Amino acid sequence: MSIGAARHSRAQARDLHSMQNIRFLLEYDGTEFVGWQIQNNGRSVQGELEKALAQLTQANVRVAGAGRTDAGVHARGQVASFKTDSLLNPDQLRSGANALLPEDVRVLSSEAVEMGFHARFSAKERRYVYTIVRGAHPLLRRYSWQCSYGLNLGLLEECAARILGKGDFRSFCKNGQERESTTCTVASAKWANEGDILRFEITADRFLHGMVRALVGTMVDVSRGHLSFEEFLRIIGAKDRCAAGMSAPAQGLVLDSVLY
Amino acid sequence: MSIGAARHSRAQARDLHSMQNIRFLLEYDGTEFVGWQIQNNGRSVQGELEKALAQLTQANVRVAGAGRTDAGVHARGQVASFKTDSLLNPDQLRSGANALLPEDVRVLSSEAVEMGFHARFSAKERRYVYTIVRGAHPLLRRYSWQCSYGLNLGLLEECAARILGKGDFRSFCKNGQERESTTCTVASAKWANEGDILRFEITADRFLHGMVRALVGTMVDVSRGHLSFEEFLRIIGAKDRCAAGMSAPAQGLVLDSVLY
Repeated sequence: MSIGAARHSRAQARDLHSMQNIRFLLEYDGTEFVGWQIQNNGRSVQGELEKALAQLTQANVRVAGAGRTDAGVHARGQVASFKTDSLLNPDQLRSGANALLPEDVRVLSSEAVEMGFHARFSAKERRYVYTIVRGAHPLLRRYSWQCSYGLNLGLLEECAARILGKGDFRSFCKNGQERESTTCTVASAKWANEGDILRFEITADRFLHGMVRALVGTMVDVSRGHLSFEEFLRIIGAKDRCAAGMSAPAQGLVLDSVLY
Repeated sequence: MSIGAARHSRAQARDLHSMQNIRFLLEYDGTEFVGWQIQNNGRSVQGELEKALAQLTQANVRVAGAGRTDAGVHARGQVASFKTDSLLNPDQLRSGANALLPEDVRVLSSEAVEMGFHARFSAKERRYVYTIVRGAHPLLRRYSWQCSYGLNLGLLEECAARILGKGDFRSFCKNGQERESTTCTVASAKWANEGDILRFEITADRFLHGMVRALVGTMVDVSRGHLSFEEFLRIIGAKDRCAAGMSAPAQGLVLDSVLY
């Protein structure tokens, strides 16, 4: 078969097959990424994924992600979706992408979903987990905040209880010029302690830019006595990012899962 | 006080104080070490520790370790001991060493022990944990063997049961010219499965060079059908390293704890 004939035959097959909408479940180590989103200043997860899929499907692919994780933030349950007229089935797309992707990002599973599905806009809830390690543990350092402050777990729990429900989280938004709404509904927010590990789990319908890290940093400020609990309540009410405490470091944060 | 007088006074204080024998509990990420032991070809854990302690105590310190972990092998419960005439107490030695050590090794705790204690020779049992991850998980890849073989857990368990007790493990010793005894007493050896993670835990009075990795590699060969169970039994009996299967990669292995 000549190249021209092969192209023609592929085009015919594509017509018959039509478009697929694919949903990927992704895990990545954020350490050496500038974040999820394509940027000019380094390798992004979205960029690596689009490059692998373009090579695999021989066509440009635009991938949408459920959560736009920042530089250094990890994911074990990021969801991405894209449309393709490739003849490869979902599992072939998964294994093919994995063969081309760098070792710090992997497609855990892949399925064909209805054409209306969009990883970002169809998501109902996202769940993030932030891990703090008391003292220094070399085997945990890439995926946690090694915190030498004396922390009061009771105060962390009291803070977490106060962010539940629907509220304006402008004080915990990185970008002061945010034009979108800054209202989020927090379905669950709790701290758990196990040995030297403190884990904060938060589920909400949406998250503002830098929100989890600003919340964790400010709660830690309260927990170590640097801010009073009353100041924490005032910060929530202030709706001004300058009011909040420090931002917890990126490497402690993981996008755990997305609910649809 | 002149420098000479200060030296004199420190020498006097040291005489009064006499020598301490210190026991450190250590955690390290083996990824960027040539192993525990000082070698000419790169940074070793022992070397980094001796350098930090020399700087801290202003004297040469020779550190003994309970287990001589290989390049790339991690530890969360390595024990080291050393003698020093430093006036610093055990906790000051811990915090001082941690301030000088690179971030991939940390002293978790420190105590003064009787002068006869030796991290290596006093140890009664060592416990290693080997982690295999089925498929690829970027967040676990630095501390596990990402294994794409289909593995039969029942076969792994059968193999583990056959290495219990006192036996000659020459077939699982890296160095063929080993002049020491190759007899070890395995107190416990078991596999556990949790989701995509398979964990092998083994406790013995002593371990030969490369023994855990050779055992894991050979058991995996049986589990994936590359070797028969009968061949595994023959390898144990052969007392010849060339008989064994492959060696599992270093990054899956952790020295978990040492018993005295």
